[in-house]
Amino acid sequence: MQPIKVYADRRSQPSRAVIIFCRVNQIDFEEITVDLFKSQHLTAEFRKINPMGQVPAIVDGRFKLFESHAILRYLASVFPGVADHWYPADLFTRAKIESILDWHHSNLRRGAATLVMHTALAPFLGLATSPHVVKQAEKLLMQSLGRIESVWLKGDAKFLLGSPQPSIADLSLVCEIMQLEILGDDERDRFLGAHEKILIWMDNVKKATSPHFEEAHELLFQVKASMLSNAAAANQTSEPSTKLKIVSKL
Amino acid sequence: MQPIKVYADRRSQPSRAVIIFCRVNQIDFEEITVDLFKSQHLTAEFRKINPMGQVPAIVDGRFKLFESHAILRYLASVFPGVADHWYPADLFTRAKIESILDWHHSNLRRGAATLVMHTALAPFLGLATSPHVVKQAEKLLMQSLGRIESVWLKGDAKFLLGSPQPSIADLSLVCEIMQLEILGDDERDRFLGAHEKILIWMDNVKKATSPHFEEAHELLFQVKASMLSNAAAANQTSEPSTKLKIVSKL
Repeated sequence: MQPIKVYADRRSQPSRAVIIFCRVNQIDFEEITVDLFKSQHLTAEFRKINPMGQVPAIVDGRFKLFESHAILRYLASVFPGVADHWYPADLFTRAKIESILDWHHSNLRRGAATLVMHTALAPFLGLATSPHVVKQAEKLLMQSLGRIESVWLKGDAKFLLGSPQPSIADLSLVCEIMQLEILGDDERDRFLGAHEKILIWMDNVKKATSPHFEEAHELLFQVKASMLSNAAAANQTSEPSTKLKIVSKL
Repeated sequence: MQPIKVYADRRSQPSRAVIIFCRVNQIDFEEITVDLFKSQHLTAEFRKINPMGQVPAIVDGRFKLFESHAILRYLASVFPGVADHWYPADLFTRAKIESILDWHHSNLRRGAATLVMHTALAPFLGLATSPHVVKQAEKLLMQSLGRIESVWLKGDAKFLLGSPQPSIADLSLVCEIMQLEILGDDERDRFLGAHEKILIWMDNVKKATSPHFEEAHELLFQVKASMLSNAAAANQTSEPSTKLKIVSKL
């Protein structure tokens, strides 16, 4: 069988979710990097793969697909080696997972991705931003983290919905939250510090998908280190600052 | 069999999608109105149904579910009378429909719902808004409409993906676009006027789900008429204006 092609930029959280999923489930794939910072997602060539100009996207033989949740569902459905817990056949359990995946878009993702984009990444993306947008994103992110804990991580749940093993929803949401790393440690802790259940759950997902989780996130930590170093230089201080101050300095 | 309970406010586009789907597929349901303008979605009672405080939500026996796309998938899967075209069993066709449903959240929905909320509905919701947010929403809405046409309504496609019959994605997206009605005719036409394929497709979905589509949208048109009348009163003009000017007048 031909390996599938995964078009991805590991700096993008849904790209990482798809890559980790393939690795954990031993799905043979060829990774094709689409560098978002070089606008490779907007080229005519890539638009033949995904006309929306977004990563990730996959090509399986003659079949093309975009949107990470759709890709995860598809991979879990067509590769017989994928364990049932990732995307359960039971209609009731599956429906609950679908509910989380749908909720993700307009809540956790909208909060986290908007915040990261309008603070740390805005200068790189040439994005016009506003304090109003940042404030709304912070509020939505905080609310989303609280709701994940109170609704889906009740009691001593190891994974969402109290499952003993992770689903594609666990993987997708945790990769989203990992993106907060590039805000710097202080900012990340401001959001995650009070959410102990979230931190334990993230660690559970990491362990369940190790070492692929760490490997897929290496680039993110390189980006973070580079931003920290740039911020320190901009601060023109001889003492390394522990505060990244990404919003004002980058 | 007990009818399912559908918690909905017909002024909400995903509520209408679920109601129309049930009617068309003769799924026995009891509709329980959750009045968003009276904040009934935020009561402790409703939070027992949906802890996220959003409509629609359903209760099927002891099983509770929220998020409209998840509800539509669930209903299509558990009710054997639902025709396959709504949510095809074929994994490739289904994956393409999932891709549209996922795309919807951060594109068409984000554009259309944000625009409606930050213009026509802002005064009713006591929502702080900004020209930046409105401008971004307009841009995203226009881009989304263009992409639906160029990617999923190629040639003389009757429904999305060139299907001869509608899927849950057709129903969900068209209900979203219908929400533009409450911006008034001039504003609606400013967005839809140049999109002939969208207009034909919307009409196809309406016909395929008639008379339930019209019936579920009656309240929306009442809201629109009421807003038009309020705007005319605020204009203090004896001649009825054809321009709604909702943004500035409501």
